[in-house]
Amino acid sequence: MTPRRRTASHQVSAALLTAAETVLDRDGTDGVTVRAVAHEAAVSPMSVYHRFVNKEGLVVALATRALEELATAIGAADDADSAERFRAACRGYREFALRHPARYSLIFGVGSPLRDQSSAVAVTGRAVFDTLATLIDQMGSLPPQSDSVEAAQIVWGAIHGAVTIEQVGIGQTPDADATFENLLTLLIGGLRDRWAVPDPRQQD
Amino acid sequence: MTPRRRTASHQVSAALLTAAETVLDRDGTDGVTVRAVAHEAAVSPMSVYHRFVNKEGLVVALATRALEELATAIGAADDADSAERFRAACRGYREFALRHPARYSLIFGVGSPLRDQSSAVAVTGRAVFDTLATLIDQMGSLPPQSDSVEAAQIVWGAIHGAVTIEQVGIGQTPDADATFENLLTLLIGGLRDRWAVPDPRQQD
Repeated sequence: MTPRRRTASHQVSAALLTAAETVLDRDGTDGVTVRAVAHEAAVSPMSVYHRFVNKEGLVVALATRALEELATAIGAADDADSAERFRAACRGYREFALRHPARYSLIFGVGSPLRDQSSAVAVTGRAVFDTLATLIDQMGSLPPQSDSVEAAQIVWGAIHGAVTIEQVGIGQTPDADATFENLLTLLIGGLRDRWAVPDPRQQD
Repeated sequence: MTPRRRTASHQVSAALLTAAETVLDRDGTDGVTVRAVAHEAAVSPMSVYHRFVNKEGLVVALATRALEELATAIGAADDADSAERFRAACRGYREFALRHPARYSLIFGVGSPLRDQSSAVAVTGRAVFDTLATLIDQMGSLPPQSDSVEAAQIVWGAIHGAVTIEQVGIGQTPDADATFENLLTLLIGGLRDRWAVPDPRQQD
């Protein structure tokens, strides 16, 4: 196989993935089928099958791409102040979720491919999570290791809940931007000074 | 109409609603149709139609019942200590969500009937929210009114995110119970002492 042909094949895969993303954004996870993606890309179903095998293969590829986009959205901030960097990362997370609700739901909604923690896509997901944990670590006085994972889980849950309530449209405050900033203020304050997580190994 | 006949009619409605809840728990929101509920209750579709009109009527009735259950789960605690009462309420919330994922998704998931804020079911939802705000108010030094609503929204978002991540099965910590308790500790600490929400009317 020549380099030229490898490139061409890679380009076909990328074009199919882009078509799949178009279907996802338009029709949601349920709409992502080999047939629908083939139709969107104007190729035969066999071409899609050849590269992604089935719906699950499409979902994993789409989830991996979405997680990479989310990682970029979180990691783009280069503010010198660690709390501002954390804020910027959380804002980037929220923006991604609000701009791409179907992609967000695919990665974190019911039936998420991240459930299988041994899968390659779960490793990509864990890398995003670890980025959040590092940002939290850099902010302050948390004890190392297990606690920054606890803290990252709590932060992730809190911002996940905030953005999904916003996506659904059932928030009870007048200004979702302000409420999100208030959440970040509470999290930063809580994580920095007031929060001491008991070591789970020492709990009874 | 005699009292006896009113009671009988009410009992039929209650039996149909229980059948609808069985369908919801088994098949999710998508499965709740006039036909499916009629089949479950072993009555004619016309009987269901007569009381609930359509799928939307069933969803609203189920959401109202679920919100009442959630209110009970939150409000059952009578601990003298306000922080313990808050913890118990949040634990009750989590238990409801984990025990009844389909009901939880119906009220707070995509397509939630609470989106229409002028509807009767949204008033029921708001009452649950206000219970949470009152519990937060009782805990401490928050300024009154607008701020306890902000605080309740933040708390709701945080626990909503925690329980939905748990429902989907994509949490990154080994002990979900411990992580939820750590979340509550962070929220209580943050709400009590460290958090001052700017008045939105004074923001530029």
